[in-house]
Amino acid sequence: MITQPAFAVEAWTIRERELNLDVLAQTESIFALSNGHIGLRGNLDEGEPCGLPGTYLNSFYELRPLPYPEGGYGYPESGQTIVNVTNGKIIRLLVDGAPFDIRYGQLQRHERELDLRAGVLRRTAMWSSPTGRTIKVSSIRLVSFTQRAIAAISYEVEPLDAPVRIVVQSELVANEALPDVGKDPRASAASLLPLESEEHEVQNMRGLLIHHTQASHLRIGAAMDHLVEGPEGMTMEAESTPDIARVSFSAWLQPGERLRIIKFLAYGWSSQRSRSAIHDQLIAALTAARSTGWEGLLAEQRDFLQAFWKHAGIEMEGDAQLQQAVRFAQFHALQACRRGEQHPIPAKGLTGPGYDGHTFWDTEIFVLPVLTLIFPHAAAEALRWRHSTLPLARERARQLGLRGAAFPWRTIHGEECSGYWPAGTAAFHINADIAYAVTFYIACTDDHIFEQEVGLELLVETARLWRSLGFLDTHGQFRINGVTGPDEYSALANNNVYTNLLAQQNLRAAAEASRRHPQVACSLGVDTDEIASWNEAAEKMFIPYDQDLNVTPQDDAFTSYERWNFAGTTPDQYPLFLHVPYFDLYRKQVVKQADLVLAMHLRGDAFSPEQKARNFAYYEPLTVRDSSLSAATQAIIAAEVGQLQLAYDYFAEVAFLDLYDLAQNTRDGLHLASLVGIWTALVAGFGGLRLRGSSLAFTPKLPERITRLTFRVVFRNRCIGVEITPTEVRYVLLKGSPLAVWHEDETITLSTQEAVIRPTSQIQAGPRPDQPPGRVPLKRAARPLSDGPVELFHHNR
Amino acid sequence: MITQPAFAVEAWTIRERELNLDVLAQTESIFALSNGHIGLRGNLDEGEPCGLPGTYLNSFYELRPLPYPEGGYGYPESGQTIVNVTNGKIIRLLVDGAPFDIRYGQLQRHERELDLRAGVLRRTAMWSSPTGRTIKVSSIRLVSFTQRAIAAISYEVEPLDAPVRIVVQSELVANEALPDVGKDPRASAASLLPLESEEHEVQNMRGLLIHHTQASHLRIGAAMDHLVEGPEGMTMEAESTPDIARVSFSAWLQPGERLRIIKFLAYGWSSQRSRSAIHDQLIAALTAARSTGWEGLLAEQRDFLQAFWKHAGIEMEGDAQLQQAVRFAQFHALQACRRGEQHPIPAKGLTGPGYDGHTFWDTEIFVLPVLTLIFPHAAAEALRWRHSTLPLARERARQLGLRGAAFPWRTIHGEECSGYWPAGTAAFHINADIAYAVTFYIACTDDHIFEQEVGLELLVETARLWRSLGFLDTHGQFRINGVTGPDEYSALANNNVYTNLLAQQNLRAAAEASRRHPQVACSLGVDTDEIASWNEAAEKMFIPYDQDLNVTPQDDAFTSYERWNFAGTTPDQYPLFLHVPYFDLYRKQVVKQADLVLAMHLRGDAFSPEQKARNFAYYEPLTVRDSSLSAATQAIIAAEVGQLQLAYDYFAEVAFLDLYDLAQNTRDGLHLASLVGIWTALVAGFGGLRLRGSSLAFTPKLPERITRLTFRVVFRNRCIGVEITPTEVRYVLLKGSPLAVWHEDETITLSTQEAVIRPTSQIQAGPRPDQPPGRVPLKRAARPLSDGPVELFHHNR
Repeated sequence: MITQPAFAVEAWTIRERELNLDVLAQTESIFALSNGHIGLRGNLDEGEPCGLPGTYLNSFYELRPLPYPEGGYGYPESGQTIVNVTNGKIIRLLVDGAPFDIRYGQLQRHERELDLRAGVLRRTAMWSSPTGRTIKVSSIRLVSFTQRAIAAISYEVEPLDAPVRIVVQSELVANEALPDVGKDPRASAASLLPLESEEHEVQNMRGLLIHHTQASHLRIGAAMDHLVEGPEGMTMEAESTPDIARVSFSAWLQPGERLRIIKFLAYGWSSQRSRSAIHDQLIAALTAARSTGWEGLLAEQRDFLQAFWKHAGIEMEGDAQLQQAVRFAQFHALQACRRGEQHPIPAKGLTGPGYDGHTFWDTEIFVLPVLTLIFPHAAAEALRWRHSTLPLARERARQLGLRGAAFPWRTIHGEECSGYWPAGTAAFHINADIAYAVTFYIACTDDHIFEQEVGLELLVETARLWRSLGFLDTHGQFRINGVTGPDEYSALANNNVYTNLLAQQNLRAAAEASRRHPQVACSLGVDTDEIASWNEAAEKMFIPYDQDLNVTPQDDAFTSYERWNFAGTTPDQYPLFLHVPYFDLYRKQVVKQADLVLAMHLRGDAFSPEQKARNFAYYEPLTVRDSSLSAATQAIIAAEVGQLQLAYDYFAEVAFLDLYDLAQNTRDGLHLASLVGIWTALVAGFGGLRLRGSSLAFTPKLPERITRLTFRVVFRNRCIGVEITPTEVRYVLLKGSPLAVWHEDETITLSTQEAVIRPTSQIQAGPRPDQPPGRVPLKRAARPLSDGPVELFHHNR
Repeated sequence: MITQPAFAVEAWTIRERELNLDVLAQTESIFALSNGHIGLRGNLDEGEPCGLPGTYLNSFYELRPLPYPEGGYGYPESGQTIVNVTNGKIIRLLVDGAPFDIRYGQLQRHERELDLRAGVLRRTAMWSSPTGRTIKVSSIRLVSFTQRAIAAISYEVEPLDAPVRIVVQSELVANEALPDVGKDPRASAASLLPLESEEHEVQNMRGLLIHHTQASHLRIGAAMDHLVEGPEGMTMEAESTPDIARVSFSAWLQPGERLRIIKFLAYGWSSQRSRSAIHDQLIAALTAARSTGWEGLLAEQRDFLQAFWKHAGIEMEGDAQLQQAVRFAQFHALQACRRGEQHPIPAKGLTGPGYDGHTFWDTEIFVLPVLTLIFPHAAAEALRWRHSTLPLARERARQLGLRGAAFPWRTIHGEECSGYWPAGTAAFHINADIAYAVTFYIACTDDHIFEQEVGLELLVETARLWRSLGFLDTHGQFRINGVTGPDEYSALANNNVYTNLLAQQNLRAAAEASRRHPQVACSLGVDTDEIASWNEAAEKMFIPYDQDLNVTPQDDAFTSYERWNFAGTTPDQYPLFLHVPYFDLYRKQVVKQADLVLAMHLRGDAFSPEQKARNFAYYEPLTVRDSSLSAATQAIIAAEVGQLQLAYDYFAEVAFLDLYDLAQNTRDGLHLASLVGIWTALVAGFGGLRLRGSSLAFTPKLPERITRLTFRVVFRNRCIGVEITPTEVRYVLLKGSPLAVWHEDETITLSTQEAVIRPTSQIQAGPRPDQPPGRVPLKRAARPLSDGPVELFHHNR
């Protein structure tokens, strides 16, 4: 955990003022740079010390066999794991022959700063070598949002007290040694086959390495070129071996003189393109980058971010530390999603090897709805990637004896990679989640071309899956048995309410979209009988209800189970899955992450307000939040049922998850769904944004501490601005033709002519519900601490 | 499958008249010899060709890591696998320099014969070498029932047409190469670390090898000594290397002359004893065997078996082929169980490496009750082995967060070795099964010493497990959720009726035994509160019932599930688990093996006769018998509800399971529970034997074809003989003081004075229930075929 107030509270930067080697791996994740295609962890320029070295390319993976102590039909035989590719970040420095390594000599000063407006990672170090020479090193690193294949580094060194002989080695290094990952199942898998070299080359200051993976047969190339400024007499030499390309600069520097290197890095990979094609592609990318120049890249980056913040930036007043966390989250979400371009969006973005670099249902349920309301185009691209994997999903459905498509629980390339079927294969809700994202996207964009090309087929094939997975029982009810819902502390349940409600929506959406596009539907083999069978299943979908308790059970049997012995569980036994067996979790009332509560968010139409409040009060004392996917949803429903301070506490927990390493695995990468969940907690939680039918609806209200909250959403080619204060909400249409939206139960029409102002919502709330002992979220002070220090945020355990 | 009528129908032998290499591995299992301590597969003397080489010592295992694609808390990290130890069976033969290998030259004649009265495997071969010399080879092999560490072979060779130079090499071979086992999960695991040599030695005609396992640290020694008879000029030499000891005999034989070798083999292993202690132990065993001599060993073996058949042999008239199968089964059951002596009884006996040599619940539920009624001492020994593993079972319970003891689903040494927890760890019924065997043993023997020393503690610790595994719900009912019953096509069910009924009996038995032995109970920490809590749980045990269907559901939800699509399942899709995923089996009405039906056998008191008939009729069409553990139980309940021909069909299926390789995995070893199940199908099925309270009860009736059935059981120091004909049953007390037993609902008193004769039972049966399409057991003809050939028995697929 990151216990100290590690980062200064500043509006637009994440600044680390001292280097703490104990949390180096965590800060490497926090300071990671990415554009969705390339990901560079925040490793120190000189390569060592290092928590986890990491350089990733979206979808570049290696296969590894999945071993089973006892095999079974339909178990995936090979897994896909993200590869730590050729490291181009490395710039080693020798000062009078002594390597610059902050574990030796004396580090006088060290500062790193992630600049959220400039889109760069800056670093400054003052270091005295073991032989007593003091130097200053300054580097700036960026991964370009505008030039997808390009990263760049400015590296500058200057002696402070005496003349020194400086050698700077700029490198590309393939097949770096990786540390042992231990046993946490959330970390990445065992080591992979090394990359095999195909080509290595240096020419002048340019170096290039091309490799391929041994099992997945993917080719990857990395190239670098340099600009250098230094004193007279500076020399340069270059060499390469299969796994290393190195360009070295040597100079004799007086105090006040500097050696400055600009390093342009280009990456490319392909499953099909030849070595020479990859080679040329890298050279071309370098040419474009050199032609833009370092200052040009910086300017493009800043312009890009300026537009982003203007368009998407959330502003809140009353809690500067949380405002910072919100911006941090928005920045990383942008990095993960902006340039995915028909590739999957992994659960960790490209910030670390956690979960093997896989994408899960999180993307469709937590990430894509947010993208849809900010950058609809990026959401469409991600769904087009899903669509491109349909042949594999159909094949998987056939293998499982089902119709339609069965999308993988976790994957990079599209094949199922889960080696634990009760929480993988059985978690069929992934299919309804994809349909949810499709339906949400179409409702918010009216994108008919997408619907015809991509959306309809996804809806049809998932609806077919549900129709064959469930059955009409003797009482005429449609039941879906033996599946696993979002809560990973339950499995193989009958009629998981979340699953059934989302499947119901999926079936209806397929029927409606088929009617809207009869020709395309016909080409997919849809006929009126099939549409009728979907409607019948949706209409007769069984939703269990516990009449005794007057609550909605998570599934048929959940509320009849023994309650988890929370009183007998010690704080160090969380997360439970690392300390107790699944068999016991599955058979008791204990919830890892919002499940029924998530259903109340996504299918709020299926519950009355009173039922929501009762259900929320029932599940709160059972929910331990051992998953980072939980608190944002709890914040949203807490806000909906009027528990505004509880919502705020949850919101803070989500917002600080990675900045304070609350889940203790930020080392393996940031939690993208949480980062995005911060947006949702604010917009859907305090803004109360929902899709009501095909219209936007808002029920705005603020927790005590927040004095102002503003956000913007894109909806059907409009841009809507919302500004909430404790007393009133102000809606403005920033772009587009007039639009009717709901404010609470009133339809208001927004136009660019004038703002619409309404009082904020007043909700009668019951008593604040309890959480399991020791799992109460830390209370966020209701008022800012007067001129005090940064508020600490310790996790509740 | 073994399709031809492979074996001659003879009363006391299993004779193979031709060698069929396609089913060599199967016949190696069928011709395996064992005494429960040593097991020798029926490999050909000369070692090759070979299906699966196999030499086993009870409980001699190696550890192997259990790999998981996604780990989890409480998963066993290492598995135990039976080791193919030093092969002492090998006797190689060279005829004028050509190796005797039946794949070359011409095999004129080959016969193998398992003699069930002599307890030996005989083999005769007439073979012409590639160079045209014809010889006759005769061997006899035994594993001694009377000298536990000893096996012996008589090997004789004689030229038939011309003088030949004969070389016979008698060997001990460690670390034989094993064939690849393929993917069937029922086969054994991947290859193990080789045995490491500690000592090798030859002296005169004696050879000895001592090795140890690398991971489990067990030491094993094998030794051989020889007697030889041959012509003048015969020479002998001997040599050894770390993995081979070899004694070679060379002679020039004229037609009519013979070379005959008697090979004595001794085995020993230990986890504690030193190399020199093992060495000496082997020499001593050889000394005893030599002193007994070959003829002496044969005589002891024959005497032992004579007593066995007299005491335990089942006789039936009307179906000679089945009579033979019954004797085959009884012989192998004897081999597997007679000399276990506080070691586990593996599912395959010592006939093959299937299931890694593990013991399962089969032993307690299917094997031990039979042993209890034939050789109660052997049943007690097996339970003493379970008792010796209590510390490990307690530790496992702690690891799982439970009280008492959690015995392993599969093991050799006592640690859980199951790598698939939904069908391993969750199958908690193993604990009630052990308690069942204990209770049954005590009721049938009145063995108070056993009860005090072993039984009570086993009952108490398993009762404690149940008390902590289940809970009293808000309606005051005791529920056991999330467990897996016997049927492996269901898992993680709530209130599996089999489990709950056996747990109920377990709880009551612990309470009663504690009251009988208050001092011992007190020393185990049992107090009156605890006894009361067991009784309360037993009394309030929840047993679900489906009022709509008027049947007992296998568990809370079973009868609400979709029926398996039997019509859409092709014959080649059985066994289903090799062709469809578990997730789909678990969520539908399809039964792999008797579950509720087994509960009706073991807890018949909990069901009315009408309920039994209804339940049986309900489950028959759902039960696919993909497990060999099913048909015997179906035969028993079919007989109870009056379906006598169906019972007979099932009985035949059980009886021919291994002789016709019906499960297609006899190659990996025989199915011990089935072999024993034949006894139970006859005695509990047609004899109708049950324990009613603490008394024996019989409801005898015969299927049409059987004209006479006799069996004996041991009960409380009495020996009872039962002879059933189509019209009447004759009970005789062969030994012991008078005893009251039930005949149907009448109490009759048996004494050694005179037999009691009653008419056989008449049961009104409903229509014969259906089985799933393609899974109807083959109908066994109701009358013997007149002077026709042997009846074929093809499996139903």
